[in-house]
Amino acid sequence: MSFREKIKGVGGDALYEVKARIFQEQLEAKIPASLRLPPAILEDPPLDVTHIPETCGLLTPQELAITELDATAVCQKIAAGQLTAVDAVTAFGKRAAIAHQLTACLMDFFLDEGIKQAQQLDEYFRKEGKGMLPIKGTVGSSGFLVSIETSTEDCDMIRILRSLGAVFYVKTNQPQTLMHLESKSTYGRVLNPHNTDLTAGGSSGGESALVAMKGSCIGVGTDGGGSIRCPCAHCGIYGFRPSCRTTPLHGVLWYQPGQDGFYSSVGPMCRSARDMRLFLEAVLGANPALQDPDALPVPLKVPDLTQKKLQSLKWAKAKLEASSEVEVGDYTPYDHDRGYSIVRALYFEDGGATVRRLLKEGGEEMLPLTEWVISPPHVRDHDAAQVWKLRDERDNYRREYSDHWWSQNVDVVLCPPFPGTASRHDTAKYWGYTAIWNLLDYPGTAFPSGLVADPAIDIYQESPSPMSAADEYNLSLYDAAAFKGAPVSLQIVSRIFNDGLVLAAQEVIERILKS
Amino acid sequence: MSFREKIKGVGGDALYEVKARIFQEQLEAKIPASLRLPPAILEDPPLDVTHIPETCGLLTPQELAITELDATAVCQKIAAGQLTAVDAVTAFGKRAAIAHQLTACLMDFFLDEGIKQAQQLDEYFRKEGKGMLPIKGTVGSSGFLVSIETSTEDCDMIRILRSLGAVFYVKTNQPQTLMHLESKSTYGRVLNPHNTDLTAGGSSGGESALVAMKGSCIGVGTDGGGSIRCPCAHCGIYGFRPSCRTTPLHGVLWYQPGQDGFYSSVGPMCRSARDMRLFLEAVLGANPALQDPDALPVPLKVPDLTQKKLQSLKWAKAKLEASSEVEVGDYTPYDHDRGYSIVRALYFEDGGATVRRLLKEGGEEMLPLTEWVISPPHVRDHDAAQVWKLRDERDNYRREYSDHWWSQNVDVVLCPPFPGTASRHDTAKYWGYTAIWNLLDYPGTAFPSGLVADPAIDIYQESPSPMSAADEYNLSLYDAAAFKGAPVSLQIVSRIFNDGLVLAAQEVIERILKS
Repeated sequence: MSFREKIKGVGGDALYEVKARIFQEQLEAKIPASLRLPPAILEDPPLDVTHIPETCGLLTPQELAITELDATAVCQKIAAGQLTAVDAVTAFGKRAAIAHQLTACLMDFFLDEGIKQAQQLDEYFRKEGKGMLPIKGTVGSSGFLVSIETSTEDCDMIRILRSLGAVFYVKTNQPQTLMHLESKSTYGRVLNPHNTDLTAGGSSGGESALVAMKGSCIGVGTDGGGSIRCPCAHCGIYGFRPSCRTTPLHGVLWYQPGQDGFYSSVGPMCRSARDMRLFLEAVLGANPALQDPDALPVPLKVPDLTQKKLQSLKWAKAKLEASSEVEVGDYTPYDHDRGYSIVRALYFEDGGATVRRLLKEGGEEMLPLTEWVISPPHVRDHDAAQVWKLRDERDNYRREYSDHWWSQNVDVVLCPPFPGTASRHDTAKYWGYTAIWNLLDYPGTAFPSGLVADPAIDIYQESPSPMSAADEYNLSLYDAAAFKGAPVSLQIVSRIFNDGLVLAAQEVIERILKS
Repeated sequence: MSFREKIKGVGGDALYEVKARIFQEQLEAKIPASLRLPPAILEDPPLDVTHIPETCGLLTPQELAITELDATAVCQKIAAGQLTAVDAVTAFGKRAAIAHQLTACLMDFFLDEGIKQAQQLDEYFRKEGKGMLPIKGTVGSSGFLVSIETSTEDCDMIRILRSLGAVFYVKTNQPQTLMHLESKSTYGRVLNPHNTDLTAGGSSGGESALVAMKGSCIGVGTDGGGSIRCPCAHCGIYGFRPSCRTTPLHGVLWYQPGQDGFYSSVGPMCRSARDMRLFLEAVLGANPALQDPDALPVPLKVPDLTQKKLQSLKWAKAKLEASSEVEVGDYTPYDHDRGYSIVRALYFEDGGATVRRLLKEGGEEMLPLTEWVISPPHVRDHDAAQVWKLRDERDNYRREYSDHWWSQNVDVVLCPPFPGTASRHDTAKYWGYTAIWNLLDYPGTAFPSGLVADPAIDIYQESPSPMSAADEYNLSLYDAAAFKGAPVSLQIVSRIFNDGLVLAAQEVIERILKS
């Protein structure tokens, strides 16, 4: 498939195509000619496009150096007077434009405004926002052409970040329905910068591709089934899904408002563990619950793990076992199949009727992953009593799981964030490794192990026997050659509201794994 | 109406009556002959029965003295070795038996077990539990004959209280459906001890009658629409409804499990402001969120109000304005009619089908207040999309109200807990003064002003003109003579999670009002 074919967005009927073209052209028009990549590069770029910003000649050495910084370093340098906010925004913004041409990661671009804001403000850090987080005056969407709009006000998270000195210059792309572990929309299909044959993940795939391309040092995602952790894992960056409603959700675009059977959680996507903590401490320090009656004022307590040995981790045993800081044990999952069925049903309690209606209203084609995610056996329509019953099943499972968790004597669980590395486009049909923690509302990070998929090494030693239909499907997708260069990532989770423990454990585990 | 007629429970078909009689006789049989009031007293007791325990001769002077103590004093005396747990439980238990015969406040009585527990334990305080809070081995119910059961385990709240040294010796009565501001069940109709022509309120009416009769120093209620505050107000005792899910709700009996559009909140019912604080600090100190994944570990912060002037209270102006501690202002309610419609719809999203089914299964007659509470215009059936829409209306109202709250520049609002004092039986059809705060999840107390209704004073100065149909109905119920002796109570509320501020304000306001 040609690159142009690969990066193409969702199609639809004739009227849809007219409207879609308008939105696409509006975005294209915002990217200045001076930041356009030469056609030769876009004709047939390599699968790994992460180095193109460095070689394309559009960025100065100084700009390239700036974009290597994580958010903490940017803050420190600005605070020390070694970097101006304008220089920082300019560098990241230019690189974001390049990233977009290679991965379709954006849905709006407004660097001029970002630079103006940078000029005006005494800034402390900078962010961009995922498409479903309204930024006043910019394009937002809840995952359908009919829901594309220009936001009339900031959502709470953006308001808080703005008050903290954040500068906004792009909005990023996300999938139809917002409920894919893949990111293809009207604005194009987001490609994985490490291997464009693979997905950048979803639903915050535009964000993860952008951050991995260093078009931003930190961004914001929402995660209701894996939408922060999956794209971060696939692109080899850091992501944190806080316990729900501890970070402000109010105003985030969503096409099933009032659907409170599950919540998304808003968290950071970035390039270092310390940036996750920087983000959380800053946002929670602004006390979101003062404005949002649905936000929970649960304090973030990051424990000092130098005084305490971490209990029981299942994976990466060899390295961790060799360390005196960690007690490694096996973790037995508790009926994850049941939990997975519950959360899949919760996502679309109306049997997917709202999704079908929005697609129909826009003349928008239904992507195969949309069809899959709203279909039986997991998804069906409910009346009020059935809604209660489903939510009771959720609550019972959560309680049983909590008892189970304590019986396991663990602090955190180290586990995969996905059945493998980034998958090939349109194939991601198993959310179990992330969505189970959404159902339980157990906070978690995804982070790069430092390893990447290598066709010479990553082959099955013996023919695997599938443990379930879902497993059989995932095994059928495996092809060592196809995943070349994809980052291998890990996930750390802990019990609800143990957000601080996750952050502390992340630092210990990562230090040991990378030593 | 004869006393015997007045205190009678819910009726039903022939089979219902047989079963009901069994449950009633089981309870009667548990009350020893030595604690039975003379038939002469029960033939025609006065409307105010609160003094009968002192005059009936069944309690010793020492027992009477013990039952005058609030929970804090009981704890202090036990801690100081001036009182044994056995003596305390015996005194309160005996008085509870007397209270029951005069008000139908109980649904189970197990003083022997309480005394055994008291003997075994080094106790710190003692409690009894409302009928819907399962105590292992005792009778529980969710408000229907078909839901009466012997509990096989403690709910979380009881487990925590037990671990803190609480002793249990009774379960208290509550209404059909648990959704009346009145308390008539298979076990009888709970009468207001201050005036048995009036209701003790509901749904925790058994509890409030018991505590007002001093058959217990402290108890536990649940409040989803006023079920702690209304009965406490009606009986002239103290009640606190915490922000939902800060106190443990897990295991509480409820016939619509999974109905998460609104939550009940579990809180104390007692005889002093300091006992509310004692209860909350003890329960939250046990960290309910460790066991219950649905509990919120939001810290209780009781501010020091000696350093800060309380803002803006609407009521009891004269006294409060004369104090230098309080800044008194008017509070403008925000579209409470809309909020009331939303919360009434949320209570029965299935249009009351579950209630009808449970009554039918038990052959139990539908009480008029049940018919009213599950009927249009407020109540109707919903499909999944309509459930979401309703909950979205809830969330929008909550957000708008939060903005409104901040615009009012208030710390707490002092307001009535009910349209008047305790109402006559079967007439309580307006929940707006309490349920609006449930919808918003604003914590609140109800407490006695120290005044009681006096037919000589409490007459309208001018003929009132009703502000709404609900108001017209409430005005039509007013009859100064009928409410003689009913306690006049007040309610203090504050914004969600400001539980500590409510407790602190309660102390300041009460001190000023009673000075």
